[in-house]
Amino acid sequence: MPESFSQKTVAQFLDELASQAPVPGGGSGAALVGALGAALASMVCNLTVGKPKYADVQEDIQALLAQTEALRARLTALIDEDIAVYYRLSSAYKMPKDTDEQKAARTAAIQDILRDATKVPMQIAEACVQVLHLCKPIAEKGNVGAVSDAGVAALLAEAALRSAALNVLINLAAIKDAEFVARERAALDGLLSGKAQLKEEIYDLVVSKL
Amino acid sequence: MPESFSQKTVAQFLDELASQAPVPGGGSGAALVGALGAALASMVCNLTVGKPKYADVQEDIQALLAQTEALRARLTALIDEDIAVYYRLSSAYKMPKDTDEQKAARTAAIQDILRDATKVPMQIAEACVQVLHLCKPIAEKGNVGAVSDAGVAALLAEAALRSAALNVLINLAAIKDAEFVARERAALDGLLSGKAQLKEEIYDLVVSKL
Repeated sequence: MPESFSQKTVAQFLDELASQAPVPGGGSGAALVGALGAALASMVCNLTVGKPKYADVQEDIQALLAQTEALRARLTALIDEDIAVYYRLSSAYKMPKDTDEQKAARTAAIQDILRDATKVPMQIAEACVQVLHLCKPIAEKGNVGAVSDAGVAALLAEAALRSAALNVLINLAAIKDAEFVARERAALDGLLSGKAQLKEEIYDLVVSKL
Repeated sequence: MPESFSQKTVAQFLDELASQAPVPGGGSGAALVGALGAALASMVCNLTVGKPKYADVQEDIQALLAQTEALRARLTALIDEDIAVYYRLSSAYKMPKDTDEQKAARTAAIQDILRDATKVPMQIAEACVQVLHLCKPIAEKGNVGAVSDAGVAALLAEAALRSAALNVLINLAAIKDAEFVARERAALDGLLSGKAQLKEEIYDLVVSKL
């Protein structure tokens, strides 16, 4: 079991991301950026909790904070899950391919793990969609002194969603099961649909409150 | 002098970002996401360097890599610069305001530091624009097996640019020097102009190569 990449320093993470080492890659980068978006959404909530000026929204903010913190934990875990599935895939590509039987076993293993390698960025995308949805009420109800941070949270969640989508698509391109590909592609389209517009709505709301 | 936030673990950085502690905030988040974008652009270059299949573009890729690595270092440094200027601003807000003289000195100090607090996210935005521009030739010429990472780099650089812009705008809203505000706002508009379109061009290019 490899160590958790969230226990590396930010500088180390950046160095290893930039290197030709296979991990971390864009999928883990997307998960981290989603986690950064969730963290900023949490920050706005934490700067609202217990403030007399925001007495009316305390219950809403506490509920929003519980959700952003759960999503932050999930997205942080997905940094490592993307790396773990890469290692599994990499091992499958190294399987012997000298005989027809070996070739068939290797191909079956690769195709099997490629489905899991698709599901990880799909889960990153799903979590980012949830973060993005939470940014709207947080920008509306949260501490106005931190409203720009709610806007940054929305920008990061949407960029992480689209980054995860690219990682879904690159895996789907290698999967032979046409039915699986069509189903995942439709699910991905559903996740992406309307999100650029939602991000712009939140951005405009934030700018109007600056 | 506070410690460098890039020496904290990713998990610590996320915890402190999510907390009600004033630093790090959205400006540092933007700088980190810009650095992640630059790192992914570097990764694509590093996966292209020395590969016989990409013999024709070795010189270009080396030149692009030198630029993405310089921008990664710059953006990583800006994480801490955003925090440092926040501490200066916070100290200024705590200056005594019992007499008219004290009030005037406090206001002058705050207004002075707000200009610096505007320049930091402006520098983050400038660096992100440069990263975004580099992503296009990297997506065109770099290792096609890592083309999705060039796309993620572009998505992150553009989101970090717009995140930095929100941090410029929130500072400008508190600055009284109308000439400074108009000049910085015009400069910011120039940085933002056409970048959403450039990001979409790179995204479409990447998807066409998947």
